[in-house]
Amino acid sequence: MFITFEGGEGTGKSTQAKLLHDFFVEDGFDVVLTREPGGTPLAEEIRKVLLTGEPGKMDAMTEALMYLTARADHWARKIKPALDAGKIVICDRFHDSSLVYQGICKGVDIGLLNVIYNGITHGQVPDRTYLIDLASEIGITRSLSRENSETRFEKMNLEFHEKVRNAFLELAHQYPDRYLILDGTLSVREIQKKIEEDARKFV
Amino acid sequence: MFITFEGGEGTGKSTQAKLLHDFFVEDGFDVVLTREPGGTPLAEEIRKVLLTGEPGKMDAMTEALMYLTARADHWARKIKPALDAGKIVICDRFHDSSLVYQGICKGVDIGLLNVIYNGITHGQVPDRTYLIDLASEIGITRSLSRENSETRFEKMNLEFHEKVRNAFLELAHQYPDRYLILDGTLSVREIQKKIEEDARKFV
Repeated sequence: MFITFEGGEGTGKSTQAKLLHDFFVEDGFDVVLTREPGGTPLAEEIRKVLLTGEPGKMDAMTEALMYLTARADHWARKIKPALDAGKIVICDRFHDSSLVYQGICKGVDIGLLNVIYNGITHGQVPDRTYLIDLASEIGITRSLSRENSETRFEKMNLEFHEKVRNAFLELAHQYPDRYLILDGTLSVREIQKKIEEDARKFV
Repeated sequence: MFITFEGGEGTGKSTQAKLLHDFFVEDGFDVVLTREPGGTPLAEEIRKVLLTGEPGKMDAMTEALMYLTARADHWARKIKPALDAGKIVICDRFHDSSLVYQGICKGVDIGLLNVIYNGITHGQVPDRTYLIDLASEIGITRSLSRENSETRFEKMNLEFHEKVRNAFLELAHQYPDRYLILDGTLSVREIQKKIEEDARKFV
């Protein structure tokens, strides 16, 4: 069982991923909670390069390939072995973030992104994806209020983040069987309840 | 004019690239001498990750994508702008090294490597490639005698390096118009002379 969380900055993905992890653990499941970019020592090194510094420090193609490099290591060393061992894997962001940020929003060829993705995973995709949808101005304000230097994406303008929001909704409508859209204006507790109700059907 | 140097470890590529650079500079040309992985601040950061540590620190797909990430930045920020400005670019290793090391020798799909390459460069390839061919045991001995921590590839076994040598020769025979093979057992001076004689025909 492979579950991913997607959405813009500051929508509460990490919080909900952690809560779902705890929910499964309490039920006695073997669960791996991980995140992208990152999840392995090498991919966490790449994360630092990707998420710090100025928005223009690399072009969209370089950025896309850097995410996919981190994903390749994360997949081979952590996600795939855990899935093969029958564990539940919960990942905070995954390939759909590449499709949205570098593909739809920054113009890198979506076909190319998917060809590389399939080269890495041999076509395996998440079983369930939770999209927490929230107006960009709320998310960015939340995200920037954290004590955190990972602000390279937050520094992009609001128009960019609105594009990100719409691109995720577009993707969710393209894959209605895989996606569940959550209203990010609800309380943490309410979103958590909806996700748990849904997730228990899958395990 | 885009010139690349290829070959195994310790064949004298960097030395000859520098000599050819100096030769063109003396003739009054505007020349950029660069190398892969590397050539830009971001790609040099990636170089450190790629060339240090243990051979098994990443799998072949991750390694291939990491080289291509560095190449994307190098291409967009340095090679392409220099070529567009009419300069001669001399690069110590380029995409053929990915085809040989990660493709032919480590089994990453060559078609995938080339699709990504074309995504980066829109199909632009070097005008001339000098392959310095040398028995692997000589090259590795030379390369390991340097005071250098970039030994991750040198630590792979001799069988691997023999495979690398043969793969480069195979590639050179596949693209006879682009490649010139140099005998790496000749002296630095003799190889230099042959390269200069050849290169002056292209500018």
